[in-house]
Amino acid sequence: MQNLRSHYLQELNKSHIGQKVNLSGWVHRRRDHGGLIFIDLRDRFGLTQLVFDPEKNEAAHTLASSLRSEWVIQISGEVIPRKEGMINPNLKTGEIEIDVESLNVLSASKTPPFSICDETTTTNEDLRLRYRYLDMRRGKITDNLVLRHKVMQKIRNFFSDENFIEVTTPVLGKSTPEGARDYLVPSRVYPGNFFALPQSPQIFKQLLMLGGLDRYFQIAQCFRDEDIRSDRQPEFTQLDLEMSFGNPEYLQGLIEKFLKELLKETINVSISGSFKRLSYKDCLERYGSDKPDLRFDMQLVRIDDIAKDSNFTVFKEKVENGGCVKAICVKGGSDISRKEIDRYTAFVAPFGVKGLGYMKMTDGKLTSTITKFFSEEQLLEIAKRNNAQDGDLIFFAAAEEKVVNQALDHLRRLLAKERNLIKEDQYEFLWVTDFPLFEWDFETNRPCAVHHLFTAPHPDDTSKLESNPLEVRSVAYDIVLNGYEIGGGSQRIHNQELQEKIFNLLKLSKDDIENRFGFFNEALKYGCPPHLGIAFGIDRIIMILAKTENIRDVIAFPKTQKASDLMMHCPSNVDPSQLKDLDITTSPTEIHWNT
Amino acid sequence: MQNLRSHYLQELNKSHIGQKVNLSGWVHRRRDHGGLIFIDLRDRFGLTQLVFDPEKNEAAHTLASSLRSEWVIQISGEVIPRKEGMINPNLKTGEIEIDVESLNVLSASKTPPFSICDETTTTNEDLRLRYRYLDMRRGKITDNLVLRHKVMQKIRNFFSDENFIEVTTPVLGKSTPEGARDYLVPSRVYPGNFFALPQSPQIFKQLLMLGGLDRYFQIAQCFRDEDIRSDRQPEFTQLDLEMSFGNPEYLQGLIEKFLKELLKETINVSISGSFKRLSYKDCLERYGSDKPDLRFDMQLVRIDDIAKDSNFTVFKEKVENGGCVKAICVKGGSDISRKEIDRYTAFVAPFGVKGLGYMKMTDGKLTSTITKFFSEEQLLEIAKRNNAQDGDLIFFAAAEEKVVNQALDHLRRLLAKERNLIKEDQYEFLWVTDFPLFEWDFETNRPCAVHHLFTAPHPDDTSKLESNPLEVRSVAYDIVLNGYEIGGGSQRIHNQELQEKIFNLLKLSKDDIENRFGFFNEALKYGCPPHLGIAFGIDRIIMILAKTENIRDVIAFPKTQKASDLMMHCPSNVDPSQLKDLDITTSPTEIHWNT
Repeated sequence: MQNLRSHYLQELNKSHIGQKVNLSGWVHRRRDHGGLIFIDLRDRFGLTQLVFDPEKNEAAHTLASSLRSEWVIQISGEVIPRKEGMINPNLKTGEIEIDVESLNVLSASKTPPFSICDETTTTNEDLRLRYRYLDMRRGKITDNLVLRHKVMQKIRNFFSDENFIEVTTPVLGKSTPEGARDYLVPSRVYPGNFFALPQSPQIFKQLLMLGGLDRYFQIAQCFRDEDIRSDRQPEFTQLDLEMSFGNPEYLQGLIEKFLKELLKETINVSISGSFKRLSYKDCLERYGSDKPDLRFDMQLVRIDDIAKDSNFTVFKEKVENGGCVKAICVKGGSDISRKEIDRYTAFVAPFGVKGLGYMKMTDGKLTSTITKFFSEEQLLEIAKRNNAQDGDLIFFAAAEEKVVNQALDHLRRLLAKERNLIKEDQYEFLWVTDFPLFEWDFETNRPCAVHHLFTAPHPDDTSKLESNPLEVRSVAYDIVLNGYEIGGGSQRIHNQELQEKIFNLLKLSKDDIENRFGFFNEALKYGCPPHLGIAFGIDRIIMILAKTENIRDVIAFPKTQKASDLMMHCPSNVDPSQLKDLDITTSPTEIHWNT
Repeated sequence: MQNLRSHYLQELNKSHIGQKVNLSGWVHRRRDHGGLIFIDLRDRFGLTQLVFDPEKNEAAHTLASSLRSEWVIQISGEVIPRKEGMINPNLKTGEIEIDVESLNVLSASKTPPFSICDETTTTNEDLRLRYRYLDMRRGKITDNLVLRHKVMQKIRNFFSDENFIEVTTPVLGKSTPEGARDYLVPSRVYPGNFFALPQSPQIFKQLLMLGGLDRYFQIAQCFRDEDIRSDRQPEFTQLDLEMSFGNPEYLQGLIEKFLKELLKETINVSISGSFKRLSYKDCLERYGSDKPDLRFDMQLVRIDDIAKDSNFTVFKEKVENGGCVKAICVKGGSDISRKEIDRYTAFVAPFGVKGLGYMKMTDGKLTSTITKFFSEEQLLEIAKRNNAQDGDLIFFAAAEEKVVNQALDHLRRLLAKERNLIKEDQYEFLWVTDFPLFEWDFETNRPCAVHHLFTAPHPDDTSKLESNPLEVRSVAYDIVLNGYEIGGGSQRIHNQELQEKIFNLLKLSKDDIENRFGFFNEALKYGCPPHLGIAFGIDRIIMILAKTENIRDVIAFPKTQKASDLMMHCPSNVDPSQLKDLDITTSPTEIHWNT
């Protein structure tokens, strides 16, 4: 043990009584009590109580009386039992205390801007970010960082054992923007030229497969210069992996094994059986979303056929005009008041749903103001499809399919939250497969890749690539956990002609293909093995395991939603000579840090 | 196993004879021989020989005759024993071959620009870098990447077991240049402001200690925008670690344990005993360098006192004018001819040494053209200090101390190389300690930090901080392996007043301190624990373990000495809209890629 301490602060117990120890740490709390001074000394691992007795050591007692919160001290003393009635069963070291013989102040501290020892105090997040190092001392952020460490260790040991090799790919890469904006890095050697920070190591990992590496993984920092949503960061951590000569079933099996072990070893949760699977199409049909939370049921039920034959024109016309009508059944929802229904109606309005129809099930019958527009058989069928029972309530939304799906997805999640349908320790994984290869980009008026440019089309659909590209499915798969997309991957194109065809279908110009992907196109000509992979958002997985909804809580030094660092005050002005070296002209905006 | 193969290509042996197998890989070599076609099929793990027999399967044989090097194929067949006389004992799978029943071409390949299967061919490095994925297939680069993976795994498991936590620190940080140039990243949200890529996570790790994390490590990508020497890269990998409440002896002991296990587990080399230790001063005195190669002895021996009392004016005057005279003894060096001595003299001239004196030891006596200027006793003393024996040769250099050290350091290493004094499998570690805290920067005419701004002065020397700063030692230590500095670290300053004093001694302006280190200065006021750490150049360590002198050989996708990527052709031009978003004006230099 290092000489400033003989033990960590959670280690001592009754078995150490009588031993001389050296301890170091932070003053967590000081209490003066009947002439004695008690100090809770803190390190990352725990607390140990120190006692300063003026009768035994006056000098140390006097010095101890000057100690304040967050001072760093080192002491020597003897482990003694706590007095009867002073034992703290909630503390690992609660049966002993240290009779201090000498005290050494290592560092004093100003009064912290927020309390370290009172974890219940909620503190303004900006202030916590500015003093991140103090926030860490409060414990929660540190616990998350320890969890993060364990997750990264598990990843590395699991995939190493499976013959994957971790390869570090460059951070200074080439700008090939597609979708998100790149962060650029000016070159000094070639002024006016730029590197880009990677949005993912996608091309590098495919080149590693071309190089014969067979199985690769990496925990990689990735970067997107986008306006940040609350669960995003400009700089994020990705588990990236790729394998040759495999197939999706094999890879997915491996991932299931990994995720089960991860949950078991980090948060002691056991998952049994294979993960659920849904095609993208079925997933949208049943949940209105491609990342449904399966911790509760409440599926969307289509009643287009019934609506069309009914006398309820609001529904009927929607269906006739190409829209749809879907329902969700709220178990025991007949307690939902008229006022609450109005609130839910207002909640779905921004998605484009004009109103929410509803029916309640009482004595085996659906009742509401709109049941009169439906026949007895139609009502029976609605009840049957929704598995409605006495006491349930069914909501209906009618609009364009996309609108209905989005609205009911959000409503479904809101209801689950408000009605406590989600069990705290439940973890529901789902594979979503068979995503469409392309979608229409209305901005540029051309098809664009749903997953990315290198995703293989479904072998059964290749004949439709030219005739009906938007109908072509891809061999892409996402993995969803509790309503979060935590990872996604695909089989890649390993045939150079097919890759070129995809570039052309996406209407990329010859120059564009050459400048951005010329080297990769060339590489594909030298014997590319079939390969596939997946990438996981590590921050998000840790966020779920840590039971927080704030991604900043699982990152040591996170950035704000304006991609700034409140602690270091960056981005910042740089010296004009630095810009001159780079042959860059710009005029610095002033940043007001408020602190 | 994945369905495109049942086995890897090093797995099959006599015990599999009679089994049906699926194999996939690259066509390494094809030989047509007596109607049969033989293919060596290759993957990352090894080779397996395939046989196509036209009598057994004509279709497969015909298709096989079209196969060329580097095509990717998949086959099914039966494991059969090789014929007597065809067994290859050098190959793991050399006792068997595969009687192919079906053949499936997965990808064709153009003829590679250099041979994949002939590892002896030396290929122009630029071409190898342009086709890095093909170079990987030749095996050596891949072996290095596998070694690199093992090193990283060992690091992570070792330090995790020692209670260190791996924390990912930001890549987008603040520009605080000191020494090397930062790579800058323009901010889009705050145009004209910049992030900087980290030269090391130094400040972050100190903040983690302030946050109470106790023990941290990270394998971090770091960046320096400097003109690149042959063993440097703009982007490099560092093992960075830091601990609180420790001391250098404890940390160094831990590092010795780690390095011993690393060598044992990666290259099966055992190191016994503690590492050697030298103070910076002694190290320069004995070896002329702060990173001496200790695989051979040949120490520098000072003879200032003898020279001063001699009649040899060349030496005498140097010493009288503040210079020095040092000798090195070449064991058995009396075979060195006059011509070779001239070559060595020319070799040291560029360092500033005008000539090399020399004496040979024969029949217990030193002889040469200059012995006449020395007394019998002086010659005896020279021989004694150099442990000279019959057949040895002693070289002398006289000049300014710095010049003598540099010249004899280089000469020492050249002699060791030319005279084969270095054993191939020898690994000699050395701790160099007590570096000076400051050195004089003649460019800015002020003292600058030898290690970095946060290094603690030696406790015995703090009184000299103001009176004699250049005499102050620091608590800094380097670790040297076989003449390479592989790591360095220090005890850090944990006292805010002392840190501020150091900033002032370095003549940093108030504004400069505030803008660059204001947040850190503030952080130090909140109870900083004593802490210390070390950082290792991972690329360099792997380079030594892989027995290569080219750092690019141990990096998957390295950059050239002009910090460019010959494969991706980057840095590159970017779209004007990207620069407009960043409010940046520049004019792109054209880059001629030659390929």
